[in-house]
Amino acid sequence: MAPPNDDNTAAEVDEDPTPKRHISSILFVIGVDSVGTVSASLLTYASIQALQPDLIINAGTAGGLKAKGASIGDVFLASHVAFHDRRNPLPKRDIYCIGLRQAFSTPNLAKELNLKVCKLSTGNSLDMSPQDAAGINANDATVKDMEGAAVAYVSDLMKVPTIFLKAVTDIVDGDKPTADEFLQNLATVTAALDQAATQVIDFINGKTLSDL
Amino acid sequence: MAPPNDDNTAAEVDEDPTPKRHISSILFVIGVDSVGTVSASLLTYASIQALQPDLIINAGTAGGLKAKGASIGDVFLASHVAFHDRRNPLPKRDIYCIGLRQAFSTPNLAKELNLKVCKLSTGNSLDMSPQDAAGINANDATVKDMEGAAVAYVSDLMKVPTIFLKAVTDIVDGDKPTADEFLQNLATVTAALDQAATQVIDFINGKTLSDL
Repeated sequence: MAPPNDDNTAAEVDEDPTPKRHISSILFVIGVDSVGTVSASLLTYASIQALQPDLIINAGTAGGLKAKGASIGDVFLASHVAFHDRRNPLPKRDIYCIGLRQAFSTPNLAKELNLKVCKLSTGNSLDMSPQDAAGINANDATVKDMEGAAVAYVSDLMKVPTIFLKAVTDIVDGDKPTADEFLQNLATVTAALDQAATQVIDFINGKTLSDL
Repeated sequence: MAPPNDDNTAAEVDEDPTPKRHISSILFVIGVDSVGTVSASLLTYASIQALQPDLIINAGTAGGLKAKGASIGDVFLASHVAFHDRRNPLPKRDIYCIGLRQAFSTPNLAKELNLKVCKLSTGNSLDMSPQDAAGINANDATVKDMEGAAVAYVSDLMKVPTIFLKAVTDIVDGDKPTADEFLQNLATVTAALDQAATQVIDFINGKTLSDL
């Protein structure tokens, strides 16, 4: 999926203190082969350095919890992201390791495209151990992925607004083995994600951040 | 702990294809507050970009397995590093996620300073879940930390030789709660690590990589 053309539109200036420049560069981070938080954080950092984007869209697949209302093929916007596999009881490090962050708020986008909004939890394993399940539950998450909270950590450090678009390939609290269900649904779900991501980019195109 | 002076010694040229320049810059990565693999990978990447070191020393604390011969205060050099909390059964991604890498080989250093050599396993949690224990066992590791394999991932990508110096603050297969034992031993064990790291730097100073 190609990023939209960079039209080099100069920043608009108006009385509103909210920055209102056109969104001229959008960075796509889709974790495929280099899965997990380490490569996601490095890619985010290096891409911000190279492209200086106005907005990051982290679009990818996720596991969904049916107990929280997720179904195969659903595409969610995340309101919040956090880690579920960084357990550390030491003072301050507990908060650092969970790393709860808010996504850039896009109420108009969610409404216009009729996207469901939920919380996203991130860990480095495809499966869900009992400890992971406890962390996902503590994060009040409906979907789990392997990159989101790491992308958020870096984009927060670098002050780049970021949204998270996650399509459900497998039900982690269901009865099918995750790897089988993931592979079985991958093609159709990434097609749904592709369509949603295209709609998101079409919606964003020509707008300012505060329009989203 | 300050890096040694950069003496700007020009690279030596000789017939041996092995690079033989003096080690003029050494990068220290000690994970303290920003614990875990995400910040370790970012710090390694940004530091390599900024400092272009000849060698990275990842020095820090670790949990040790008494079943593999580790005791509180031991300082180990790692021969290999791998992840134990990135479980992924999908083809190719299983190998990617475990991320087994060899440390830069330093037989003279190990012998001269009488350092024990073992395998290191990395995960993002201070504790050891049953799934973590299985991964650590599969990695044949004597010590577990929260950064090493992420540092190795980046330094391998960037082709910078890296050694790992890990001092044991707690016994993960013992009967004491990890957080209590970690805090109880932190001051004395980091003093032992500081001493060992100073000896390592003194040994390295003025030598070429192939001397190590």
